[in-house]
Amino acid sequence: MSTHIKFGLMLHGAGGHMNAWRHASAPADASVNFRYFTDLAQQAEAAGFDFLFVADGLHINEKSLPHFLNRFEPVALLSALAAVTQRIGLAGTISTSYSDPFTVARQLATLDNISGGRAGWNVVTSPLEGSAQNFGKAHPAHSLRYEIAEEYINVVQGLWDSWEDDAFVRDRDSGVFFDAAKLHRLNHQGKFFSVAGPLNIQRSPQGQPVIFQAGASDTGIGLAGKSADAVFTNARTLAEAQSYSRKLQASVAANGRDPVAIFPGISPIIGKTPEEAEAKYQHLLSLLSLDDALAYLGRFFEHHDFSQYDPDGPFPDVGELGQNSFRSTTDSIKHRAREEQLTLRQVAYETTLPRGEFFGTPQQVADALIAWVKKGGASGFILSGPVLVESLRDITRDVLPILAARGYWQPSDETTLRGRLGLPFKVNRYAEPVPELVENQ
Amino acid sequence: MSTHIKFGLMLHGAGGHMNAWRHASAPADASVNFRYFTDLAQQAEAAGFDFLFVADGLHINEKSLPHFLNRFEPVALLSALAAVTQRIGLAGTISTSYSDPFTVARQLATLDNISGGRAGWNVVTSPLEGSAQNFGKAHPAHSLRYEIAEEYINVVQGLWDSWEDDAFVRDRDSGVFFDAAKLHRLNHQGKFFSVAGPLNIQRSPQGQPVIFQAGASDTGIGLAGKSADAVFTNARTLAEAQSYSRKLQASVAANGRDPVAIFPGISPIIGKTPEEAEAKYQHLLSLLSLDDALAYLGRFFEHHDFSQYDPDGPFPDVGELGQNSFRSTTDSIKHRAREEQLTLRQVAYETTLPRGEFFGTPQQVADALIAWVKKGGASGFILSGPVLVESLRDITRDVLPILAARGYWQPSDETTLRGRLGLPFKVNRYAEPVPELVENQ
Repeated sequence: MSTHIKFGLMLHGAGGHMNAWRHASAPADASVNFRYFTDLAQQAEAAGFDFLFVADGLHINEKSLPHFLNRFEPVALLSALAAVTQRIGLAGTISTSYSDPFTVARQLATLDNISGGRAGWNVVTSPLEGSAQNFGKAHPAHSLRYEIAEEYINVVQGLWDSWEDDAFVRDRDSGVFFDAAKLHRLNHQGKFFSVAGPLNIQRSPQGQPVIFQAGASDTGIGLAGKSADAVFTNARTLAEAQSYSRKLQASVAANGRDPVAIFPGISPIIGKTPEEAEAKYQHLLSLLSLDDALAYLGRFFEHHDFSQYDPDGPFPDVGELGQNSFRSTTDSIKHRAREEQLTLRQVAYETTLPRGEFFGTPQQVADALIAWVKKGGASGFILSGPVLVESLRDITRDVLPILAARGYWQPSDETTLRGRLGLPFKVNRYAEPVPELVENQ
Repeated sequence: MSTHIKFGLMLHGAGGHMNAWRHASAPADASVNFRYFTDLAQQAEAAGFDFLFVADGLHINEKSLPHFLNRFEPVALLSALAAVTQRIGLAGTISTSYSDPFTVARQLATLDNISGGRAGWNVVTSPLEGSAQNFGKAHPAHSLRYEIAEEYINVVQGLWDSWEDDAFVRDRDSGVFFDAAKLHRLNHQGKFFSVAGPLNIQRSPQGQPVIFQAGASDTGIGLAGKSADAVFTNARTLAEAQSYSRKLQASVAANGRDPVAIFPGISPIIGKTPEEAEAKYQHLLSLLSLDDALAYLGRFFEHHDFSQYDPDGPFPDVGELGQNSFRSTTDSIKHRAREEQLTLRQVAYETTLPRGEFFGTPQQVADALIAWVKKGGASGFILSGPVLVESLRDITRDVLPILAARGYWQPSDETTLRGRLGLPFKVNRYAEPVPELVENQ
């Protein structure tokens, strides 16, 4: 794959830092401020970022993160942003556990058409058991959720091919609107879904939206191997990213597919000097009480109350909590606590606000980005925090020029998301092969 | 209610004429052309129209209308239009038979927030039985669909009140993001839905989106009486509109509510002279073959094949066809055919392209609009066709000035949809009464 680094921008309120809303660089109501999102999207587009990426969740309670409590639904947000941007990709999270494939196929195809082929779908299975209570059904167990997701993706992609690319003739003189031979009814009858089709909207300039996935468990990687065009991952170290990458690309190869693009989420802390970076970190830390950090940690463990333990004692044994929701994250936290003999306080703060490997001067951060790409840990990155306005400004102003000078970055001329990610146009399954290919067979 | 006439614009491809796509004034791909929709929306806004109204459908087959075969999903389309308009309302159709109230509540609340309080929801129950095949379930019978819809609306409105208007404190100094006493969990357990809440998005400047309904059957009117803020209706004559209005307002009054705004859909044909109007009508007629007209008629009767009958014979007996989908429309067609002793050909063409009461010079059309309002048939109108670009231009340029001069129209200064429709801010069910009201009790 190309060593030109691709960049996405995660849109989730003021940023990934749980109290980013307290930071002076963004409005406190960022998560529901459309003008703020418009500014951010247009800045990212102007800077040459390849796509926006909207996370999501279907369940909140009083302990949820501030930017989860009150936020825009991804389809509506991305559709609105499609109208005020021209080239940047628009990827959004939609759960396969709590939605209907016919409607999701329509909404994503609409976004894809409105945006001229810039839509992406981050397929998630909804980790939080509480989601079920908002949809009047039982929360499927982890492996079942992924089985459902696989069939769901197949249904949606089948619906997206309902109309061949040249199906709509629209001949005003003859009155022929479409070619019935190029209309295909899916007639899907599966284990979980029964969907006849056809879909009532055409394909887009990129053929179909890009499929992102984010599952880091073995089951998640298995599904990504089958169907992801690109993945988002939460790797915190290069070693973790490499380990994930090896597993993922092996899963992809086992399905006879080419390697897919891997996008770790990053929250760089960048200063002109190491001291300035440290000062930024300390300021971000000052926005977090110990209670905040313990509550943040608790999210991954079914909102377990970590304030009951001595913060300066060892990380407590919490058993199987979180195994059916944030399995890979909780495994990683427990592993690190054990290996590095961290106190609960350390685990909480490092989980909530990691310094991470993208910390320091622009040169140091550029070095780290290049190292992750050269050493097989990433194809690009999704800028996720800690505070988006500041991180986007720093990366754009101080880091991209270094990457460009070293030959690791240049803005793309492509106007579809597939084009920007180096993915080919998605050919309709019903399309006849082009004559050249037939002759060469 | 005010005699200032309100106007909505129906967005459905090139227009309500089934072959509007053949008309030179719009692009042939109008139903999936976002630039076209943007131009139309901005023109309507500049002209002082109060809202856009997006129809929808969840099932197509080869016999569906051209602009139904390939069209944008309403949530995505309206969200995109929200970003390129400032004042015009944004109402969209979503079915209560084939969607999840939690997601619909989120998407509409997102649209409402992004647009600054301009969202409306046209509640439909999905007439077409084929819809069921796209959602893997059985199509509920007519009365059951309305029972489901009633509970559905209650759930969505309950979710919309999850957060009181001042729940988000966002005090950066203290770190207090929200007031937990102003967060309300719905905990709905009903006959059809079980939804815990809370919703993960705040209310908007209008409190809640406006509820539109369009059901014309007695059951539909019963539901509208309970929960509609405004209604869309397909009345073809003033007498029909008056009859509908009497029934609807009686239903509203029986629920102890104030009269609601009624918006008949209109497809005016306007010429500077009666001859010019007739020439326009003949041109529109020339875009329709007899087969087209018979197929259009067939839509309301479960795609019954009317081409098997003598077109110049009487309207055939088709039994109960269409009774579980377009009940009121089929009743009305059969009634008219019998009363006026129309041939099948006449019924087909008059159903597909009625001349209607909004036909003639701008003065004649203005007279008709005023008559409908003065005589209790309408509070305003939704301009639906026959070809939107032309109809919008003619109404804006030639008819609105007449209405304004006669005191029946002026552009609204309001920026929320409730404001534009004369509806009050929707107070949160959990909000404490304001002190003055308490003292006056």
